[in-house]
Amino acid sequence: MTATPESRHEEAPAAAAWTRGRVGLWLIGARGSVATAAVVGIRALAARLAPPTGCTTAGSAFTGVPLPGFDEIVIGGHDVSDVPLVRRAQLLAEAGMLPAPIVAGVRSDLAEVDAEVRRGHAATAHDESQASAILRLAADISDFRIRHSLAHVVVIDVSSTEALPADRPEFHDPELLAAALADPAQRVLPPSSVAALAAVESGSAYACFTPSAGLWLPALRTLADRRGIPYAGQDGKTGETLLRTVLAPMFTERGMHVRSWAGTNLLGGGDGATLADPAAVQSKLASKNRGLVSLVGDHVVAPLHIDNVPDLGDVKTAWDHVHAEGFLSTRITLQTTWSAYDSMLAAPLVIDLARLLSLADAAGQTGPLPAMGFFFKDPWGSDVHAFADQATALRSWATDTALSLAPEAISIGNAR
Amino acid sequence: MTATPESRHEEAPAAAAWTRGRVGLWLIGARGSVATAAVVGIRALAARLAPPTGCTTAGSAFTGVPLPGFDEIVIGGHDVSDVPLVRRAQLLAEAGMLPAPIVAGVRSDLAEVDAEVRRGHAATAHDESQASAILRLAADISDFRIRHSLAHVVVIDVSSTEALPADRPEFHDPELLAAALADPAQRVLPPSSVAALAAVESGSAYACFTPSAGLWLPALRTLADRRGIPYAGQDGKTGETLLRTVLAPMFTERGMHVRSWAGTNLLGGGDGATLADPAAVQSKLASKNRGLVSLVGDHVVAPLHIDNVPDLGDVKTAWDHVHAEGFLSTRITLQTTWSAYDSMLAAPLVIDLARLLSLADAAGQTGPLPAMGFFFKDPWGSDVHAFADQATALRSWATDTALSLAPEAISIGNAR
Amino acid sequence: MTATPESRHEEAPAAAAWTRGRVGLWLIGARGSVATAAVVGIRALAARLAPPTGCTTAGSAFTGVPLPGFDEIVIGGHDVSDVPLVRRAQLLAEAGMLPAPIVAGVRSDLAEVDAEVRRGHAATAHDESQASAILRLAADISDFRIRHSLAHVVVIDVSSTEALPADRPEFHDPELLAAALADPAQRVLPPSSVAALAAVESGSAYACFTPSAGLWLPALRTLADRRGIPYAGQDGKTGETLLRTVLAPMFTERGMHVRSWAGTNLLGGGDGATLADPAAVQSKLASKNRGLVSLVGDHVVAPLHIDNVPDLGDVKTAWDHVHAEGFLSTRITLQTTWSAYDSMLAAPLVIDLARLLSLADAAGQTGPLPAMGFFFKDPWGSDVHAFADQATALRSWATDTALSLAPEAISIGNAR
Amino acid sequence: MTATPESRHEEAPAAAAWTRGRVGLWLIGARGSVATAAVVGIRALAARLAPPTGCTTAGSAFTGVPLPGFDEIVIGGHDVSDVPLVRRAQLLAEAGMLPAPIVAGVRSDLAEVDAEVRRGHAATAHDESQASAILRLAADISDFRIRHSLAHVVVIDVSSTEALPADRPEFHDPELLAAALADPAQRVLPPSSVAALAAVESGSAYACFTPSAGLWLPALRTLADRRGIPYAGQDGKTGETLLRTVLAPMFTERGMHVRSWAGTNLLGGGDGATLADPAAVQSKLASKNRGLVSLVGDHVVAPLHIDNVPDLGDVKTAWDHVHAEGFLSTRITLQTTWSAYDSMLAAPLVIDLARLLSLADAAGQTGPLPAMGFFFKDPWGSDVHAFADQATALRSWATDTALSLAPEAISIGNAR
Repeated sequence: MTATPESRHEEAPAAAAWTRGRVGLWLIGARGSVATAAVVGIRALAARLAPPTGCTTAGSAFTGVPLPGFDEIVIGGHDVSDVPLVRRAQLLAEAGMLPAPIVAGVRSDLAEVDAEVRRGHAATAHDESQASAILRLAADISDFRIRHSLAHVVVIDVSSTEALPADRPEFHDPELLAAALADPAQRVLPPSSVAALAAVESGSAYACFTPSAGLWLPALRTLADRRGIPYAGQDGKTGETLLRTVLAPMFTERGMHVRSWAGTNLLGGGDGATLADPAAVQSKLASKNRGLVSLVGDHVVAPLHIDNVPDLGDVKTAWDHVHAEGFLSTRITLQTTWSAYDSMLAAPLVIDLARLLSLADAAGQTGPLPAMGFFFKDPWGSDVHAFADQATALRSWATDTALSLAPEAISIGNAR
Repeated sequence: MTATPESRHEEAPAAAAWTRGRVGLWLIGARGSVATAAVVGIRALAARLAPPTGCTTAGSAFTGVPLPGFDEIVIGGHDVSDVPLVRRAQLLAEAGMLPAPIVAGVRSDLAEVDAEVRRGHAATAHDESQASAILRLAADISDFRIRHSLAHVVVIDVSSTEALPADRPEFHDPELLAAALADPAQRVLPPSSVAALAAVESGSAYACFTPSAGLWLPALRTLADRRGIPYAGQDGKTGETLLRTVLAPMFTERGMHVRSWAGTNLLGGGDGATLADPAAVQSKLASKNRGLVSLVGDHVVAPLHIDNVPDLGDVKTAWDHVHAEGFLSTRITLQTTWSAYDSMLAAPLVIDLARLLSLADAAGQTGPLPAMGFFFKDPWGSDVHAFADQATALRSWATDTALSLAPEAISIGNAR
Repeated sequence: MTATPESRHEEAPAAAAWTRGRVGLWLIGARGSVATAAVVGIRALAARLAPPTGCTTAGSAFTGVPLPGFDEIVIGGHDVSDVPLVRRAQLLAEAGMLPAPIVAGVRSDLAEVDAEVRRGHAATAHDESQASAILRLAADISDFRIRHSLAHVVVIDVSSTEALPADRPEFHDPELLAAALADPAQRVLPPSSVAALAAVESGSAYACFTPSAGLWLPALRTLADRRGIPYAGQDGKTGETLLRTVLAPMFTERGMHVRSWAGTNLLGGGDGATLADPAAVQSKLASKNRGLVSLVGDHVVAPLHIDNVPDLGDVKTAWDHVHAEGFLSTRITLQTTWSAYDSMLAAPLVIDLARLLSLADAAGQTGPLPAMGFFFKDPWGSDVHAFADQATALRSWATDTALSLAPEAISIGNAR
Repeated sequence: MTATPESRHEEAPAAAAWTRGRVGLWLIGARGSVATAAVVGIRALAARLAPPTGCTTAGSAFTGVPLPGFDEIVIGGHDVSDVPLVRRAQLLAEAGMLPAPIVAGVRSDLAEVDAEVRRGHAATAHDESQASAILRLAADISDFRIRHSLAHVVVIDVSSTEALPADRPEFHDPELLAAALADPAQRVLPPSSVAALAAVESGSAYACFTPSAGLWLPALRTLADRRGIPYAGQDGKTGETLLRTVLAPMFTERGMHVRSWAGTNLLGGGDGATLADPAAVQSKLASKNRGLVSLVGDHVVAPLHIDNVPDLGDVKTAWDHVHAEGFLSTRITLQTTWSAYDSMLAAPLVIDLARLLSLADAAGQTGPLPAMGFFFKDPWGSDVHAFADQATALRSWATDTALSLAPEAISIGNAR
């Protein structure tokens, strides 16, 4: 099969096309808003029902980079919800988020993907020890890989934001962790970390699109490094934070002194409800402000709110107020109001990550991938937050990685 | 004399310090708002009454680049106004734009600079042919250079925006232009171009901070190239356009499709009054939209207004509304409201340009300096508008230019 | 038939119910956006598919006022377009403006109303003299009234905004006008005034929802007064202007001094295209600013723009920037951004006007109705622009008019 | 002495002028920002250094109402701070809040007022029982009244916002309260209520400009009613809340359904610091939302934040986002950004209240004055929040009260 990297301009297939066969995208939270949008989108792009607007990897900078085509991505996942993808997609179309004709056009695809969704591991599932859950989830992923003869599987966590767990020794020591997991009475890990460990066990590439603990616990990263998987994170940079990491460098390049950067986010939908939980919102707020502080300095006063406003549905509206000091201490103020369906900002990034982590895996890269920082509020393996610098780094990485892949290497794959 | 590149952190003087002696800054429109802010600022920075907030060249990226110190810049200029700088500065302090204690602190400096201001050439000055005006103005600059033993003089046009002249053959052919100038009955050039030609005649580096014709007429650029001066332009990128060239790349990097970018600018003060003239505003609007179109494509719908609102004084408030299409054609909107004293955004850029063009001149560079595009709505010698790319280019240029200057070269200067 | 005044709370029918039978609503521009929204809405409200949100007359202040029920309004009209209402409604549903289930629910109603739409009189229709056009249009309305046994017909002009015609003597003298109309070679009236005169000829109540000339020409008002019809206008107060007449009194009540009030409107859709014509926009801009000046004084600096931004579709976004001087001349600024489907703001006002003008007609009122100023940018017969005062006046008028209607009077009707 | 009601247009003195002699304004928190602005303002208006912009009572609706002239108001007060008014005024002028020339013009007046400021009662003042404090403070006010031969004294609390105290039986029963106050070991009242009780004891009119407990405790109101003083409150309606009570009626009059109204306030200065205390901010937030709920219904989702952003100084910036449902459930959004010096909005209201409460006292009115609701977030004696209705009520009250004052009555005064 010859891959066809998509682009808005429908160019001819790249010379150095992806020749490895299909790849897998395994979504943790496969029936949530972001996953539904991503699944609808991938199938719509594969069927050329829509141009790949919003996908960075569809841009001209990625022409010639051997990424899997949209029609080469096989999708499955875990979820604790039983609401079928078709139903979720219809609800999101009625809410105005997904275009109804597109949903109608991929209806049968959604049923097909739904058949690949397995029961997730819930925090409240006391009938299953965490050790068993990890094995069961990993087996689901491996089975998926084998049944579809997939060259690589990329696991991406797009489930609801969890509260951050209190620190404990097991998070820092793989052996302590193993002991705790072996005890069926203990539930040492948050669900996102159970899922992350299953991804590691199955030898899949992994990305954490949420601010939940996921793979970020040191013991888990050690295990991921031992297993030799590539991974990336954390917390998708979709809206307000994207804007901040674009704007903050403007102030610093011009020698201005940012004094305060206040923000308020209004949203409803499932995300709004999740973030109405003060513990969950705390992990979100922390990751939203880290980039800002890194870019303008820790003197910045940066109150930040996320309000659950159910009537606004899935549209997120974010207002920011920036006060910077300019020449001779004169006041400069900038206000921004950003309004968009947050899940529709997230979905193309999930697709980009699936494509890019497949490439990384094909190229034998392991450990944290700093170049993926472009997509995250909390980049792993990098302290670069400035968006333009991240874009440059991503493009360089893609070019270098593509060059590193001799055609033979591509066909050999990444045997572990 | 040992130069001390200023920085917010008051570092020790750079090892490779400027060793050439003082440089000149000659302002066309030396008694206008921007000039007054720049003069007050340079003298305040020299006296360490204020940190160099807003000056790009005071940033850490320029440590080690042999730029003239703030106390090494001698200032003069042309103006058609008789209102002394001291009076202008007081009025701007009363209006809240300039800090009163700073103005008080440099009061005697202002009188000193005022003594270096010579009568400009007005469009309505029918007692003087344009040829004579050019000679007179050039002589003023040369005299200033000689009297102060200046290593270099940088001429920067910060005068009021003119209407763009209708095209004519003389603008394209130096010989036709010379003939027309020789005829006292003709007034072939707009005043900004008379001033630019005087800068060329005097062998000074030149930058055009306004959208007026200035040096941009092809015949004048030919003459500048023959004379071997470095030059840069055009139209300072201070507020709304700065923001646009920062934000537009975000949309394109993320594969979003910008459909419209509407803008409204409200301002009073002298600038508001100047731009209330439909002909003058036309040249401003044209240069404001060029960068946008270059960044997001010429399909963009971009209505743009500049309204004279006298009661707002010198604070400029700009509202932009951006509509971008994201994944599966969903709508993303971004509104920005930027509010600042426009002249206070411009002044530090004028200082940066004075320092950087001195360096270019010292390094023997001639012709348009593409790296200066960082400062302009209409970069000369470059079609790069994306702000982050311009910042990278500027830093590289500064480093490379500094390296090109062996200590000997620095002391030899730029003999023409 | 017993009328049922609708209200959000589904109260029991008012004691003093409307007992006159059905009334007619005749729309000039019956296939435009506003008309389509109004027709879909009236039929949906009649069928109780939706609550009467946005209708002032559905509020508790109008309980007991004998207004026609939503199911007692028979709709017809004129249009120069052949696109059926069903098609227009579908397009507006696809664009997200009309809810698709509502449109589906009234599909057969739309076809029924469409059968009552007659060919309008176009400015370019040179096969028909204006005198003949007036007679033809008036006959259409009379025929509609007779066929449906309507107690009253209310004609409302919701057609596209026209350029304002240059003044001429015929506009001021009914006899001169009659002579000009008698000459088939002359086209003395703009189309909106031809339609208004047809409404007068047919003895219908009339309201002008656009800023076009319509009935506003003095000669036409004289004729309307002679004919004894009630009429109202002009230019529906839907969004930005509504907001201004709500906010401006706040400043004046508190003794603040409004210095400037700048505004920019962005819209696409048919309205955006119409207003891209500088002549048409001029009549709109004039009526938008008149209320403001009346409320805060003519010293106010009030630049105002309407930009056609096709990609924004029917959503209108308006940004206003207000600068007021407060205590000891300190600066107060207020920015507002209003975003809504303009036609969806207009449609319920059209319904309110149909109900209220029916009542006025039933009560034998003639001439301009000042209490209708609540709905208009340019109130006729009143110079009150402050919204709260208009609301009070409207409620008083409704109560007084209801009291003036003895049950007998209601059954006698308005014999002319 | 003949009073001269001030107005922007400098009309001739009203026929029915104030003939009672001078009145007293006693400020609790007399050296805070609001007090300083009010004192500077009253003296500047008395000296005709500035027009009475921002004062409702200077409007034409109050011509003929016998209010004390600005030059008839004698000022004193309590404060726990020792920073002299002159110093506070200078600091506020340096911060750009107060105009420096005005402060200079009233410099000696400030010293004079400062001499009338007595030591307030601090929560931490354990050397003084609350009973003694009440007597001491009341004696200060009486002494002020007698020394200056004042016809009336109006006490206005403009001190910092306190945390609301937990409820207790003494707050509801004057006798229990008296017993508790008699016990030197108990500190049953918050400081604002100690001050309020002192006002009652001294027989002065009273207004509570803050959300602190003040006179609002039922036992205190009973005592105030027994003493026969007129009083008003609570929490000055200056900025965002003012705007909300102006805008909310627009939505309801037009039958729109407000779903959510989210708000964020950014401010620094002393007020920002005070409100950084979660307990203090709670009382503020509660009173801010009460009016909104009363106007649009308790279904409204209304998250509200007050953030302390020290770098913004005394300028308060408030962003509100309103989502209303319109016709056929379509979405309407309104965003407002209000920016002003909050103390400069408050000061003229304090002056208005001083004048109006003097009038009420002269007219022998006692108990809560519902017509003063115009000035407050939490009107006392009224549940009207709609601003336009409040304005109407205030004007009617002023006219009626003026009519109730026969000239004789005016000269007799309000003997208690």
